[in-house]
Amino acid sequence: MKKAIAILSGILLFTAAGHSQKVVRKNYEYINPIIGTQRMGHTYPGATVPFGSVQLSPETDTIAYELDKKYNGEAYKYCAGYQYDDPTITGFSHTHFSGTGHSDLGDFLIMPTTGALQLNPGTAAHPEKGYRSRYSHTSESAQANYYKVKLEDYNIVAELTTSPRVGFHRYSFPKSTDAHIIFDLMAGIYNHKEKNVWTFVRVENDTLITGYRQTQGWARTRTVYFAMAFSKPIQKYGTRNYDENNIYKGFWRKFDQTQNFPEVAGRNLKMYFDFDTEENEQIQIKFALSPVSTEGALANMRAEIPHWDFDRTKNEGQQLWEKELDKIKVITLNEDDKTNFYTAMYHAFINPTVYMDTDGRYKGLDQNIHTAVGFTNYTTFSLWDTYRALHPLFNIVQPKRNSDMIQSMLAHYDQSVHKALPVWSHYANENWCMIGYHAVSVIADAIIKGNADFDTEKALQACISSSNLRYYDGIDSYLKFGYVPEDKNGSSVSKTLEYAYDDWCIAQIAKKLGKADIYAKYMKRSRSYQNVFDANTGFMRPRLSDGSFKSPFDPLDTHASGFIEGNAWNYSLYVPHDPEALIQLNGGKEKFVRHLDSLFTMTLPDKYFEHTEDITRDGIIGNYVHGNEPSHHVAYLYNWTDQPWKTQRRIRMILKAMYKPTPDGLGGNDDTGQMSAWYIFSTLGFYPVAPGSDQYAFGSPSVTGAELQLENGKTFTITTKNQSAKNVYVKKIILNGTPLNRHYITQSEIMNGGTLQFEMSGKPKR
Amino acid sequence: MKKAIAILSGILLFTAAGHSQKVVRKNYEYINPIIGTQRMGHTYPGATVPFGSVQLSPETDTIAYELDKKYNGEAYKYCAGYQYDDPTITGFSHTHFSGTGHSDLGDFLIMPTTGALQLNPGTAAHPEKGYRSRYSHTSESAQANYYKVKLEDYNIVAELTTSPRVGFHRYSFPKSTDAHIIFDLMAGIYNHKEKNVWTFVRVENDTLITGYRQTQGWARTRTVYFAMAFSKPIQKYGTRNYDENNIYKGFWRKFDQTQNFPEVAGRNLKMYFDFDTEENEQIQIKFALSPVSTEGALANMRAEIPHWDFDRTKNEGQQLWEKELDKIKVITLNEDDKTNFYTAMYHAFINPTVYMDTDGRYKGLDQNIHTAVGFTNYTTFSLWDTYRALHPLFNIVQPKRNSDMIQSMLAHYDQSVHKALPVWSHYANENWCMIGYHAVSVIADAIIKGNADFDTEKALQACISSSNLRYYDGIDSYLKFGYVPEDKNGSSVSKTLEYAYDDWCIAQIAKKLGKADIYAKYMKRSRSYQNVFDANTGFMRPRLSDGSFKSPFDPLDTHASGFIEGNAWNYSLYVPHDPEALIQLNGGKEKFVRHLDSLFTMTLPDKYFEHTEDITRDGIIGNYVHGNEPSHHVAYLYNWTDQPWKTQRRIRMILKAMYKPTPDGLGGNDDTGQMSAWYIFSTLGFYPVAPGSDQYAFGSPSVTGAELQLENGKTFTITTKNQSAKNVYVKKIILNGTPLNRHYITQSEIMNGGTLQFEMSGKPKR
Repeated sequence: MKKAIAILSGILLFTAAGHSQKVVRKNYEYINPIIGTQRMGHTYPGATVPFGSVQLSPETDTIAYELDKKYNGEAYKYCAGYQYDDPTITGFSHTHFSGTGHSDLGDFLIMPTTGALQLNPGTAAHPEKGYRSRYSHTSESAQANYYKVKLEDYNIVAELTTSPRVGFHRYSFPKSTDAHIIFDLMAGIYNHKEKNVWTFVRVENDTLITGYRQTQGWARTRTVYFAMAFSKPIQKYGTRNYDENNIYKGFWRKFDQTQNFPEVAGRNLKMYFDFDTEENEQIQIKFALSPVSTEGALANMRAEIPHWDFDRTKNEGQQLWEKELDKIKVITLNEDDKTNFYTAMYHAFINPTVYMDTDGRYKGLDQNIHTAVGFTNYTTFSLWDTYRALHPLFNIVQPKRNSDMIQSMLAHYDQSVHKALPVWSHYANENWCMIGYHAVSVIADAIIKGNADFDTEKALQACISSSNLRYYDGIDSYLKFGYVPEDKNGSSVSKTLEYAYDDWCIAQIAKKLGKADIYAKYMKRSRSYQNVFDANTGFMRPRLSDGSFKSPFDPLDTHASGFIEGNAWNYSLYVPHDPEALIQLNGGKEKFVRHLDSLFTMTLPDKYFEHTEDITRDGIIGNYVHGNEPSHHVAYLYNWTDQPWKTQRRIRMILKAMYKPTPDGLGGNDDTGQMSAWYIFSTLGFYPVAPGSDQYAFGSPSVTGAELQLENGKTFTITTKNQSAKNVYVKKIILNGTPLNRHYITQSEIMNGGTLQFEMSGKPKR
Repeated sequence: MKKAIAILSGILLFTAAGHSQKVVRKNYEYINPIIGTQRMGHTYPGATVPFGSVQLSPETDTIAYELDKKYNGEAYKYCAGYQYDDPTITGFSHTHFSGTGHSDLGDFLIMPTTGALQLNPGTAAHPEKGYRSRYSHTSESAQANYYKVKLEDYNIVAELTTSPRVGFHRYSFPKSTDAHIIFDLMAGIYNHKEKNVWTFVRVENDTLITGYRQTQGWARTRTVYFAMAFSKPIQKYGTRNYDENNIYKGFWRKFDQTQNFPEVAGRNLKMYFDFDTEENEQIQIKFALSPVSTEGALANMRAEIPHWDFDRTKNEGQQLWEKELDKIKVITLNEDDKTNFYTAMYHAFINPTVYMDTDGRYKGLDQNIHTAVGFTNYTTFSLWDTYRALHPLFNIVQPKRNSDMIQSMLAHYDQSVHKALPVWSHYANENWCMIGYHAVSVIADAIIKGNADFDTEKALQACISSSNLRYYDGIDSYLKFGYVPEDKNGSSVSKTLEYAYDDWCIAQIAKKLGKADIYAKYMKRSRSYQNVFDANTGFMRPRLSDGSFKSPFDPLDTHASGFIEGNAWNYSLYVPHDPEALIQLNGGKEKFVRHLDSLFTMTLPDKYFEHTEDITRDGIIGNYVHGNEPSHHVAYLYNWTDQPWKTQRRIRMILKAMYKPTPDGLGGNDDTGQMSAWYIFSTLGFYPVAPGSDQYAFGSPSVTGAELQLENGKTFTITTKNQSAKNVYVKKIILNGTPLNRHYITQSEIMNGGTLQFEMSGKPKR
């Protein structure tokens, strides 16, 4: 620490020591969870701790799946349950994805109300017809692990905080003889009237409720258990069962199950709990989750929050954030950059989430209960996104967690009846979203970078098994033809390219483990990208099983067959593991630079933009689509040409254009932290173009200085000279006092600690 | 043993010793599981071991719940899945109730076929349109733990046997290139298109399948896990998903899930497994169940049947039956009586069933996993039936199991959010069927009879709690008015009478445990029967909350308000705990005898018989309904008058009329062994009129002799002199050499061992 301060002392001090007159903001105070909640960011404003199992956040609406067509794709807006522009809040639920492009979750919606009991949410246009309430952003506060809002229709102030597995609600009521806590078990994100498979609730006593929600959907078979404790005894309560086909009520008809009956079950339940309240009386709720059982949920509650001190839990969670954020201390050109940076850190450290009880038990893919021995089990692996920069970032600042995440993936592999590593998995489910088998990239990156605190031999076997799952997404044809023929399997070019990269990753593992034959085999597979390159057009192009290229072919068309979340223009640049060969394929450096230049400068006609998912118009620069991931490495490719300064310029342009400290500040879905990880790397000045290699390509740092506190106790410091918004070009790079005459830095150079000095300039170094 | 032989040597020998020329049939060979399978017995012919978790049995049809009205109550016929008169078999499923009057289960239907694949069952009229097959009783064999039948449409011989938790199938195929094992996860007893909540299946490898079935219905939330092993590798397999609302197929669309895809889930699945077979080739299946997990099911399979020797498992199960049957060795007047007796023993020892994995774990009412520590956990408590004679029988010949059953009830109480003992419970569910809180009778009977290897203080608390569950079935009013007013709660007379008896049971426990205040309180409650006696009509009669008796009132009407499974004639005799007071209430012994006589001799007009559930016309003698339980003690009530000989005559008449060694041999539902327990007691010569007392009222033994091998090592021997079908009257009773001048024997007199001699006569002892 002292050393770092000394090095940076010429610029700014990280601590309050030198600024006794000024109140120094803690890093976590720069977190603004509102960023990305407007339009396409798909982040949520609510409370969570780093990698926490509970994400307690307001919902402003959840358009039901079956109504999505009617609402013209509106359901997509509600991936995280909250849209900044909405005028009402329907309630607060306990699980949310951060920044995804598909959704699920939204479990256990709680809404405090007063007055006449209403059990339907009502509509945004007519909130008075349901339990929802108007609110305004002026009464709203979103911080790390804390959310507050005034529910205007009821004059209730709602506050939320969490521990890893427990949501903590604090509701300040007005004086009322008719105060309710609505508990809507039918609510959910990406909902459907058939989504609930079963729900089960017991009122154990006048302050404790237990139960579970079992759903189908994106997670095909998913059960979340809960235990809910009230700070004040329930006065009375009730249940409504909306099941259309409650087939056998039978002898349960003996009871009036609608009122004060402590055991209910069905597909479509709503409950309410009634109280009398004094003016400003607070009713608090601790709501614990478990992937195992109600018993597990209750144990989690008792272990994590054995008290009713809301502020204590809030503070503890904020300290957890501070601890994580302290891993990268930055000095920025302005406060907005700092907000962007720490909010990016925040978004990067939300997913994957811890998925196990405090005793290490969790439900696995086989629906059996497993115990994580020697590691923390994680879920929510959006790997098509996160293999690119998020897991490489973890290999620097979260090596222990990244290793545990890989152990979680290997447990997934053990439990998988397909003997496959996760593709996109959450809550003991594989949802097979997107393409590739990119878990192998995460594993290779960790092994190559020496962060392999797991069984590497087994990991290699898991990678090999995953890459040979013949019934998965054209693998059978890929192995037969050397590419995925479009007539056999759609998005064939994207798949071929990504499989080739993944195979290169497997080759790297094999090489590291001394398996020459496997290395050779997978290096051969890694060159499969050549099989979809059409020399005539100069693009990667869909090919058929007869060997011919598919016609017609429009390289700009994002919706053309052959590609997914990208067009031929973008995907033709996807050979991250061998940019030099890619450049040769494209006719050499000069031609390649022209190709890259065109990408960023061309005007994409509207027809190609219409109906493009996941990104706003702002997410595009020319034909470069930052809002989708396949281009994330592209701006760095100039490094392999004679014009690296174009990388530097583009990176600063993208940083500025795509990341703003505003509700609509994200240029596309944050994608469980991938977009944020791109920001963090790029703002520090380097980026992992090919995870699985130990190199990071240089860009142009936008920070003034940074200090990486590594888990190994070392410190890696980044300084810049002549940094400014205009001085985006790198004139010189000095590592530990020695000038670097290359365009990359390696993992070990970072992990050994030391100082990386950038000398910036307003003029490109041609 | 020697002593017994010596005592009985004058009559017949139990062993082969004296009959060297004759092959002596083992007792289990007298078991005929076909008895009761025609019409209303609701027993099943398939394989099971004593109290086994698996009941593997053929289904001949299962009319769906929603079609029941159309089929005019036909679904009721299929409580056990099999009706003797049906011409076809749809398959073999793994769980069945024995003799119930309501139903559920029928999990995991397996059917072997050849030829064109058919996944629907077809109809009995057109079996060729589905997978079902014709069969005939001539090719059928039903034994203890063994069932065999030829499936004529496919020329397949099917054989079934079981271990406690595993069903073992052996199918002998013809030569075929098109042999199938159909696995119908949509099939079930008392089924409904919405009954399956979820099913989940994994093909772990080419010989192992795992998964579960979760249902709603009589058990509101029930999940059964399985592991299925094939003796021969599956050649290919497939799945059909019939879900109408498979809401999110999403990325699973990447796969052809219909063929050789190893992981399927949904509400409505059917699967098939294909094989080539040689002539007479046997394909065997081991199908293990678990209430906990697929892991548990697999462990159960490995623990119980770690081999492929079908005959070994069959023999082991038959030896288990022999061991249980050896507890009562009988000498009978004829072979039919012996068949009746040992089949009654068989039916008495099927339920309750063991409900836990081999490691003691099971899913509880709270849906959490519990471990039975120090006892075996049982389920399927049809207590309204079984408290009468089945549990008292267990207190003599199955004391350890009965004590464990009570521990299981106390575990149920612990898990119950209502803090109530079971009413009618199965598979971690309370279904609240019928009335009363008769678990207290079972507990009282065990405590009074000194078979209380459980926490008696806790048991008393559980009884008190159960009897004060105010929202249950009129308890609130019962406590307020001293009776259940018919305008507050239906079947009010039946409930009042049974609550009064149950309260007497609680009083007996309190007395035994020295709780004078509780004793006094519950003795007062036990006299509540007086509050529904209408002196004007001489009957127990529905009363309203204003104190008046309800009009009109027809004491013969079985469907009149106030009663359930009985009319006022029958229920007016229900004060088992105080027959003397009942007789006083009825105007003294002479008047009471006339009442009883009328009961047995009157002609019940047809109008009262129509639509009476549970019993055939054969189940009625006069107005005495043996097919329903409330009268089971009635024939013994003459003992409290001056004409006990009428008890003796009636008992022998009922034994003869209601129990025959034929498919339609049961006069009504066996009711999980209660009807059989009545038979066993009555044929031995005594019966527990009031469980909770230590006395058994004498009747007229129909056996020639019997030997009860008690768990305490002692032997209780019953002999008869001058026994014959005509000599139904008891002239003299001698206990251990001393004449008995009373009409009962006590529990301790039996459990101390010794000899009870009946001297029979053709003339009543007036």
